[in-house]
Amino acid sequence: MLSNPLRVAVAGLGNVGVGVVKILEKHKELIADRAGREIVITTVCARNKNVDRGIDLSSYEWVDDATQLADMDNVDIVIELIGGEDGVALMSAKNTLNNSKSFVTANKAMIAHHGCELADMAQKNDVALRFEAAVAGGIPIIKAIGEGLAANELNLVYGIMNGTTNYMLSQMEARGLSYTDILAETEELGYLEADPALDLDGIDAAHKLAILSSVAFGTKTDFDNIHIEGIRNIETVDIEYAKELGYRIKLLGITKYEDGNLSQRVHPVMIDRNLPIAGVMDGFNAIVVDGDFIDRTFYQGRGAGEGPTASAVVADIIDIARGHKGPAFFKPTEKLVAANPVSINQRLGEYYIRLHVQDEAGVIADITASLTLANVSVKTMLQKGNERDGTVYVIMLTHDIRETAMKDALNRINELPSVIETPLSIRIEKL
Amino acid sequence: MLSNPLRVAVAGLGNVGVGVVKILEKHKELIADRAGREIVITTVCARNKNVDRGIDLSSYEWVDDATQLADMDNVDIVIELIGGEDGVALMSAKNTLNNSKSFVTANKAMIAHHGCELADMAQKNDVALRFEAAVAGGIPIIKAIGEGLAANELNLVYGIMNGTTNYMLSQMEARGLSYTDILAETEELGYLEADPALDLDGIDAAHKLAILSSVAFGTKTDFDNIHIEGIRNIETVDIEYAKELGYRIKLLGITKYEDGNLSQRVHPVMIDRNLPIAGVMDGFNAIVVDGDFIDRTFYQGRGAGEGPTASAVVADIIDIARGHKGPAFFKPTEKLVAANPVSINQRLGEYYIRLHVQDEAGVIADITASLTLANVSVKTMLQKGNERDGTVYVIMLTHDIRETAMKDALNRINELPSVIETPLSIRIEKL
Repeated sequence: MLSNPLRVAVAGLGNVGVGVVKILEKHKELIADRAGREIVITTVCARNKNVDRGIDLSSYEWVDDATQLADMDNVDIVIELIGGEDGVALMSAKNTLNNSKSFVTANKAMIAHHGCELADMAQKNDVALRFEAAVAGGIPIIKAIGEGLAANELNLVYGIMNGTTNYMLSQMEARGLSYTDILAETEELGYLEADPALDLDGIDAAHKLAILSSVAFGTKTDFDNIHIEGIRNIETVDIEYAKELGYRIKLLGITKYEDGNLSQRVHPVMIDRNLPIAGVMDGFNAIVVDGDFIDRTFYQGRGAGEGPTASAVVADIIDIARGHKGPAFFKPTEKLVAANPVSINQRLGEYYIRLHVQDEAGVIADITASLTLANVSVKTMLQKGNERDGTVYVIMLTHDIRETAMKDALNRINELPSVIETPLSIRIEKL
Repeated sequence: MLSNPLRVAVAGLGNVGVGVVKILEKHKELIADRAGREIVITTVCARNKNVDRGIDLSSYEWVDDATQLADMDNVDIVIELIGGEDGVALMSAKNTLNNSKSFVTANKAMIAHHGCELADMAQKNDVALRFEAAVAGGIPIIKAIGEGLAANELNLVYGIMNGTTNYMLSQMEARGLSYTDILAETEELGYLEADPALDLDGIDAAHKLAILSSVAFGTKTDFDNIHIEGIRNIETVDIEYAKELGYRIKLLGITKYEDGNLSQRVHPVMIDRNLPIAGVMDGFNAIVVDGDFIDRTFYQGRGAGEGPTASAVVADIIDIARGHKGPAFFKPTEKLVAANPVSINQRLGEYYIRLHVQDEAGVIADITASLTLANVSVKTMLQKGNERDGTVYVIMLTHDIRETAMKDALNRINELPSVIETPLSIRIEKL
C-alpha cells in the first residue's frame, strides 16, 4: 500500500453525496485494500451547511463554493454531485481538470453536453475524468463497455435507462392504473426529478444514451441529434393491447452505429414480452450490448438511488486511486469521430397505432382510405367498443413501413371528423 | 500513444487461441486506440505446427514449447490457452511471472487450484496476472466485481456458470428429451469438454465458483471445500414436476461469505420460474452479485465459444497495455483470508424429493414413517402413476429442514423394499 492517501473533496451533499461519504467511511479499510492506498475525504461542500443530512460531517473541512475545491492543497480529486448541465458543476469540472486534478461526476446532463470538451481537458492535463454513476448507477456499464468489451467493435447498445418511467409503466400494467394516477403516485413517492420533464419526456434517458454512444462507438457526444419521446401519451389501453398482442411497452434508449452513421433515439417501444429486457420491471435499469466477438451481453441493476449511484462514484475513485487514468471515452479525444446523425424518418419497421374515434358508420372506411393514400399496409386491426360514450378504440399493427409513411397516415387520419383524440403510434422493435 | 508496442505470445492454438489472433488482427487499429499503444503478436505456440487452424500464422514466430516463451526477448506478455490444472500451463505461468512479465490465461482449473500462489508471484514481480476469460467468457464479470462493484462489501454471488449443462437442461425442458438423449446430442454437437465429467459433474462450474469467491470476498481460493453435484441424475420427470410446481431446474454455483465463513456449492436447484436467472436458457451464462450499497446486479452473456472467450482474453491484454496491473484478486495477496468452509450439511431449506416406487399398498405409509423418523416435515406430496409397469413416482416438497435430516430420510426410504431407484433430492433455493 502506498503511504500517501488520496484526498477527496465531495461537492454536493444530497442523497448521492451523503452516500459517497457513508461508503468511504464504512468501507475505509476494505477500500484501502482494494485501491492500494487509503482514500480520505478532506473536504465537503454544499451551499447550505445548516441542513440535517443524517450523518456527522463535522470532521471534514466545509466549503460553500464548489469552484474553490480545485485550488485547495489538501484536495487531490474532486467529486461533483451538484448536477446541472453547466453552471457551478461545469465550472468546477474545468477548474479541477485544468488544475491537473482528477474529476469524478454523476452528472449525466453535463457529460452529455460537454463530455468531449472535458475529456480533452483531462487528457491534456494527464488526469482522469470519470462518470460511471452518470449512467445506470447500479450497473457498471461504462466500465463493462469501455474495458470489459474493449476487444469488440460495437454496433448496438440499447436499454432501459430511466428507472422512474420504467416504474410507472410497470405499475400501470401490474395495477391497471391510468397515466394520471401513476404520475400522481410517483410524484408523491419522490421518484421524479426536480424537473419532471427530464423523466417523463425521455430527456434523462437521452443524456445517458448520448454518453453510452460515445463510450461504445468512439463518437463525439451528440445529444442534440437524439430523437426523444417520453411516455406522457401512453395509456392503460395501450398497455392492455400490448399484452394481448404478446408485447410489453418500455421506454428504451437505442443507439446504433454503422459506417459513420449514428442513429440515437429514446422513445416508447413495444417489444416481445419474452425478451429478458421486457422482464425488467419497476426501478431497475438494464442495458444490452452487442459486440462482434462477444455477441449479446445483458446487464441489469438498480437505476438510481443513494446506494447504487454512490457505489458507482466510489468505484471511479478507487480506479483513480489504483492509477487508472485512461481516456474518458476510452479513446484519445482526437480520435473521437463526429458521426452523421441518422434521422428517425429513416426508420423502417412495424408500428402499433391507436385511434380513438366516434363509433359511427364509415369510420373504418375513412381510416382505410387514409392508410391507402399514405401507402401504409396494415396486418392487424382490432376494435374495442366503449359502451358508455359511443366512442371506440381502433388498434392497428402495420407491416414494415417508413416512419415518414406512418406520420403521413397519422396526419391524414387526424383530420378525419370522427377522430376525437390525436392518434398515437408506438414503434415495434425486434431486438 | 506510446510508441513502444506491447509484444504478445499466444500459447495454445485451439479455438480460443485462434480467436485471440483473429481479434488482434481484425481490430488492430481500434485496439491500439483503446489500449493507448499497439498490441502485436510476435510469437505463437502449440505442440503441432502441421494443423490447419483456418488462419495464416506464418508471419509469427513459431515455438513448440510454451515454457520457453517467458525467456524470449521479443515477448512482453504471455497468453496461456493450453489448459490443464498444472503441467505446461502452470510451468509457463510461473516462468512468465518470475521473469517479471505479465500473464493472461483462460485456465479456470489452474486458477481455481493455484490462483493465490500465482497472484503472489505476480505481486512480488510487479506484473499482472489476469484471467477474465476463465469465468463466463461472454460476461466481464471479474472486472465488474473487482472494479465496478469495488465500493461494496459482497456477501453473495451465484449463477449459471456452465453453458453446456444449461443447454442440456434447457433442451430437456423445451423438447421433452431424456437425459440420455440430450447427452448423446450434446456429445455429437461437440459441446462437451474433452473430459465430460468436468461439465456433467459440475467440476467446471466449481472451478469458476472458486475464482469468483476469491474475487468477490477476498478469500483464498478453496476449490477442495466446494460441495459439487452435477446433473447426471436429473430426469424428464423432474423437469416436468418443476414446471408444474412453478420452478425451473438449473445447475447453479452459489457462494456466500459471512463473518469469515464461506459456503460454496455447485448443484442442481429448483428456483422460481419467474426469476431473471431462470429465464437464461441454452448456452448462456448469468451471474448475480449482491452488494451492500449496490443491491442486486445481474449479468448475462455467452458462456463459452471462440469469440466470447477470446474477447475476454483480449480485454485483459488491453488492460495490461493500459498499464493496469493491480492485484489479481483485487487485494494484496497477504490480505486474502483463509475462510472457514461451511459444510453443505448446515443447509436449512426446502427440498424436492423424487421417489420411484412399486405402486402397491402400504408404500406411502412406509415412506411417511421414514420421514417421521428423520424428522422431515412435508408440505406437498404428488403421485403420478406409470400404467405400463406398475411403478409410480412420488414427489414431495419439504418444509425448511436441515440437509442432514433430508439425507437421513432418503437413506431410510432407500431401504424400503418397494423403492426401485435411488431417491433424488433437489434443493429449492429462494434467491
